[in-house]
Amino acid sequence: MEQLNVKIGVLTVSDRASRGIYEDFSGKAIIDYLKDVITTPFDIDYRIVPDELEKIKEILIDMADNQNCSLIFTTGGTGPAPRDVTPEATEAVCSRILPGFGELMRQVSLKQVPTAILSRQLAGIRGNTLIVNLPGKPQSIKICLDAVFPAIPYCLDLIGGAYIETNEEKIKTFRPKGT
Amino acid sequence: MEQLNVKIGVLTVSDRASRGIYEDFSGKAIIDYLKDVITTPFDIDYRIVPDELEKIKEILIDMADNQNCSLIFTTGGTGPAPRDVTPEATEAVCSRILPGFGELMRQVSLKQVPTAILSRQLAGIRGNTLIVNLPGKPQSIKICLDAVFPAIPYCLDLIGGAYIETNEEKIKTFRPKGT
Amino acid sequence: MEQLNVKIGVLTVSDRASRGIYEDFSGKAIIDYLKDVITTPFDIDYRIVPDELEKIKEILIDMADNQNCSLIFTTGGTGPAPRDVTPEATEAVCSRILPGFGELMRQVSLKQVPTAILSRQLAGIRGNTLIVNLPGKPQSIKICLDAVFPAIPYCLDLIGGAYIETNEEKIKTFRPKGT
Repeated sequence: MEQLNVKIGVLTVSDRASRGIYEDFSGKAIIDYLKDVITTPFDIDYRIVPDELEKIKEILIDMADNQNCSLIFTTGGTGPAPRDVTPEATEAVCSRILPGFGELMRQVSLKQVPTAILSRQLAGIRGNTLIVNLPGKPQSIKICLDAVFPAIPYCLDLIGGAYIETNEEKIKTFRPKGT
Repeated sequence: MEQLNVKIGVLTVSDRASRGIYEDFSGKAIIDYLKDVITTPFDIDYRIVPDELEKIKEILIDMADNQNCSLIFTTGGTGPAPRDVTPEATEAVCSRILPGFGELMRQVSLKQVPTAILSRQLAGIRGNTLIVNLPGKPQSIKICLDAVFPAIPYCLDLIGGAYIETNEEKIKTFRPKGT
Repeated sequence: MEQLNVKIGVLTVSDRASRGIYEDFSGKAIIDYLKDVITTPFDIDYRIVPDELEKIKEILIDMADNQNCSLIFTTGGTGPAPRDVTPEATEAVCSRILPGFGELMRQVSLKQVPTAILSRQLAGIRGNTLIVNLPGKPQSIKICLDAVFPAIPYCLDLIGGAYIETNEEKIKTFRPKGT
């Protein structure tokens, strides 16, 4: 029996990275992280988009509905600057928001920098897809992923998404017993 | 002078419990907790409802407006699964949300399980009634109630609800002086 | 070259203070705090308003759009009581909300009093202006300002507001390098 690989979207939102002005270290940091912690097979759908609301929404919808990504991580565009519109795009394509993700990511980031409270990053559900906004800086990405990843596989179970297992020495996935 | 008892609604939201497939330990856990900590007289309005938005809204409105419940606790239906609609129902019948309740309940639950961030539980106000979403699992209910209950009696004072006192050895109710 | 002073709005929201029934210690506490920590020149636009939605909105809009305040602090009106409408007024005049401010202010206030979860205080952006709701009690104002102020100067940089520096011995302003 052929096992179809889980698909995970990684979307870098950045005017400058999308024009090739600088290298996208953030998107690469997410991909490296996923390869390091997920032990079940998966494919990456990786894209870069400028900070434009409609374009971000379009890609999120395509990743979720057409490419069947179970999980999408965005990086960038979550701050208070006028061009930052990633949370708006995410909220617009999701049917429900999971406020605990944003709260926890800000809380752990706050231990690094006081400006963590400026991040509007959030997570939400579109159909069977979980979308999580990550910060723009590579060093903050790992801190946020370490904090929320233990809850992600069970979240995918609950929303009818893909089944994912992690390297328990790196991320202790939690699945409640008897549920 | 006859003292009219305060009324407290306890609403278990569960497809399975509502069909009698399993016993409602969660609703009973809330009732036991209230009997243990509240020292002023009160009556319980206890009901079970399936995970259906309109039915949940209907009961919350009936408990608040017709049965004059000062306080309503729900249990269940706060996760990310498609059938989970308790927060949506609560938000729909409330005129304002108190974000601090959800934040604190997730924070204390997070010390138990990393999947606490999947809970969308919230609290809000409808007229003189405070509605608080609690988790579905009995062991998590106590942790959440211990965290938020110290603020509940003063909240009821502020919204013109019932006057409640607690056993200070179990829950230290806080009422600011001179307010 | 003449340097134009930065303008900071301080708005006390209180039925009683607005009628002169008691002295506005809260507004004064904010002004004293700002004079103590900000080292760059600034002028205060200080006003008192009753707990009325339309009047609060009107003043916030005037402070932001006509008086060019880069920063506005409100005090009072953030609780659950029916007359408390400061968060509603703030949200109504802002184009985006920064949820991290409310989360952090409730978290630090919670170490003082369990009723901190009753506060609905928030922060948001209107154009180049950051608006932050502070609590009504002077002792809580300092706790909240100490928590969020380190992120405020950089936030103003990001939204095109005024440049502010602080006394580093009192508030360690954080500006990420190379951004």
